[in-house]
Amino acid sequence: MKKYTNIDDIESFPEIIQEAIQLKENPFAYEHLGTHKTLIMLFFNASLRTRLSTEKAAKNLGMQVMILNVNDAWNLEFEDGSIMNFNTTEHIKEAAQVISQYADIIAVRAFPSLVDKEKDASEWILNSFVKHATVPIINMESATMHPLQALADAITIEELKKTKKPKVVLSWAPHPKALPQAVANSFVKMMQHIDVDFYITHPKGYELNPAITLDTPILYDQNEALEGADFVYAKNWSSYSEYGKILNQDSNWMMTQEKLKTAKFMHCLPVRRNVVVTDAVLDSSNSVVIQQANNRTFAAQIVLKKILENLY
Amino acid sequence: MKKYTNIDDIESFPEIIQEAIQLKENPFAYEHLGTHKTLIMLFFNASLRTRLSTEKAAKNLGMQVMILNVNDAWNLEFEDGSIMNFNTTEHIKEAAQVISQYADIIAVRAFPSLVDKEKDASEWILNSFVKHATVPIINMESATMHPLQALADAITIEELKKTKKPKVVLSWAPHPKALPQAVANSFVKMMQHIDVDFYITHPKGYELNPAITLDTPILYDQNEALEGADFVYAKNWSSYSEYGKILNQDSNWMMTQEKLKTAKFMHCLPVRRNVVVTDAVLDSSNSVVIQQANNRTFAAQIVLKKILENLY
Amino acid sequence: MKKYTNIDDIESFPEIIQEAIQLKENPFAYEHLGTHKTLIMLFFNASLRTRLSTEKAAKNLGMQVMILNVNDAWNLEFEDGSIMNFNTTEHIKEAAQVISQYADIIAVRAFPSLVDKEKDASEWILNSFVKHATVPIINMESATMHPLQALADAITIEELKKTKKPKVVLSWAPHPKALPQAVANSFVKMMQHIDVDFYITHPKGYELNPAITLDTPILYDQNEALEGADFVYAKNWSSYSEYGKILNQDSNWMMTQEKLKTAKFMHCLPVRRNVVVTDAVLDSSNSVVIQQANNRTFAAQIVLKKILENLY
Repeated sequence: MKKYTNIDDIESFPEIIQEAIQLKENPFAYEHLGTHKTLIMLFFNASLRTRLSTEKAAKNLGMQVMILNVNDAWNLEFEDGSIMNFNTTEHIKEAAQVISQYADIIAVRAFPSLVDKEKDASEWILNSFVKHATVPIINMESATMHPLQALADAITIEELKKTKKPKVVLSWAPHPKALPQAVANSFVKMMQHIDVDFYITHPKGYELNPAITLDTPILYDQNEALEGADFVYAKNWSSYSEYGKILNQDSNWMMTQEKLKTAKFMHCLPVRRNVVVTDAVLDSSNSVVIQQANNRTFAAQIVLKKILENLY
Repeated sequence: MKKYTNIDDIESFPEIIQEAIQLKENPFAYEHLGTHKTLIMLFFNASLRTRLSTEKAAKNLGMQVMILNVNDAWNLEFEDGSIMNFNTTEHIKEAAQVISQYADIIAVRAFPSLVDKEKDASEWILNSFVKHATVPIINMESATMHPLQALADAITIEELKKTKKPKVVLSWAPHPKALPQAVANSFVKMMQHIDVDFYITHPKGYELNPAITLDTPILYDQNEALEGADFVYAKNWSSYSEYGKILNQDSNWMMTQEKLKTAKFMHCLPVRRNVVVTDAVLDSSNSVVIQQANNRTFAAQIVLKKILENLY
Repeated sequence: MKKYTNIDDIESFPEIIQEAIQLKENPFAYEHLGTHKTLIMLFFNASLRTRLSTEKAAKNLGMQVMILNVNDAWNLEFEDGSIMNFNTTEHIKEAAQVISQYADIIAVRAFPSLVDKEKDASEWILNSFVKHATVPIINMESATMHPLQALADAITIEELKKTKKPKVVLSWAPHPKALPQAVANSFVKMMQHIDVDFYITHPKGYELNPAITLDTPILYDQNEALEGADFVYAKNWSSYSEYGKILNQDSNWMMTQEKLKTAKFMHCLPVRRNVVVTDAVLDSSNSVVIQQANNRTFAAQIVLKKILENLY
């Protein structure tokens, strides 16, 4: 693997999922692979799970880890040709090349503006690193994608599925803040690549980018969508068509035990209790959100392993 | 040792103190004990000594260390059943379980509000981690306790005492800000467990929680209390009865060489010079505050060692 | 080497430069030298290159690294005899002694006020650490000096020079913010110690401290200075005589390809594009700024190596 900026960088989905499950059984099996190799993690935004699980994954492989909260440095400039006479101190061209010399792999977290749709779609921060860095880039959630989360989700479904082709439903949920579409986008793409019956349900106006949903069935009736589901992934996102807007906070879309029935409950976390999903669901044995979070370590570790192997 | 949230978690006080002193002589003697083990340190509040000494201690034992300033993530919710529609993003139930999967031990620093006495007394943050985490918790100073400091203090007294049962005095000191009672509380409890003659002196109104001081003699006359002392621990705390209030900033309570005479001067640091204690005391050979701070490493290291040994 | 607070701590300039170049060829050759040794890096100010390259250098030598953004702790007091009743919480006397017990080497970054010339000249923060710490101090850029940068610059010139005694020009550049003289000062001192023809060019009023420039030729005509240059180091600094003031933002002083001709372009980074220097220069093969930044690792590593060797 040459980089992991989106799930299209995966060569074989069944293989990477199985290898991640094997790593989980023996996390230190490749602890010498990362000797003399350094992961630099760059955060433009807040992180808890992603930060800790990715650091853990790299250390399980014997890598050195260096972390920079970009706010501890200064504002970076991303525009070509700009006269940097204002509030940006260093151009991404220099920053990415320089950091590449201190790292063997760079991982980047950079959220969208949710204001400028075209700019967010261009993945200007992530792709500037891809363009100017001279080492492989890992996406720790970008403007429109969260491929490490999607890989952890696929591992979790593989571990828990009881039928060859389970039914999986992505169900939009209410939320007080405008959130990115990144988690939903990457989950949708991942479900299109693994052997599941996949449906999306949300209120009208919350259609995700059609270039991502493609022919995945979209139902506006949540109950109809949830019928017979094996896995239900609740997640809020802000509107894509009315970009970044909150159109609806209808608590009828909150996930409940009544709706969930016997399905496994999935969420990427952090989750707002009794807004996105009830306490009863999260505290039940049907909730697999903690297991999903654990699989973040092994999603990151298999990605780091495959990139490290490609370096030699 | 299963956890170290307060000094009651110590099984044998003489033994842990002696073992810490032995570790100090050979800090790397157990450097393989922590192989493949990870300490996650979570800071809700500022730290200098605690952060550096605890990280050092873990690395002396060969552990991996991951540090999260909680402010680099987001606000956590601690109330059960709350509808998380406002400014908290993740519930401690998820956070503690998730972080437990990335760590073998979690250390937490979370100061009191000094506003809500009952809530602070409940140790809501620390105890939420104890309740929801699935790995051992170490207290790096909580609302009402600072047991790593108290252990370092006991080590220091053991190293320096010239009589079998030295006289130790905890002497309240003035301070411009309202400070927690945590250091004083844990020091009092520690002195009750080791072989010392122990007295507390403070102005009226500064009585600590009587459930902690128990039958420890309290004197309102500082000079009388200091008479013949071998060790004097100066420390400010805000009022417990008029909770979190500053009742008094009387500089007559500042520690001076005249009052100290030949006693050793102790303080947990940071200390405000010429407010809590004079320059002359801190710069004299009677001050043992630097040695106390050094013993923070070995207090943390013996605690980590005992918890690690219990994991196997 | 006992410390590295300024370039005068270097015993032999040709030797340290050659040894750094050898380290670069085999960065892990001394990876056991730092076993059981800890570098603590203290940041009073923002950092990107310095932080990552110094951490990398220490880890290449097998050291443990602990990093403290001083803002994550509290304000330190530096005045002797002060009554600490206001906004400082801990005196440098305690802080430096305490941190020394957790570290084998302490590295400090502390920028100038650019307001109080005498205080900045006294290097009050850096020198307080030198005075009160009990372990060697490394300067990661102080009020008036940036000796790790100057060493990386000297390494870069040595690697790239095509004549025995190349012509090197330090050329002042415009900038929207008042910047320290530290980089320029240390570069000037370094050039005085290595075998180069060295000139400084800047507008009148931008004379650096004459105790540093000594008899280095200063030209106010940039074109005249650049004539026949092999290396041109562009850098802004604020006025030394009218201390910390911006006297001039004349874009005629910006470095361009026309002025540079075939000379190598140097800058310490971060650099403001199209203000200090044009895109065309930075994007050309004459720019060596990325190589300079890479050499920061080996400048730090050779300094750490020499200090570690002196510890035994």
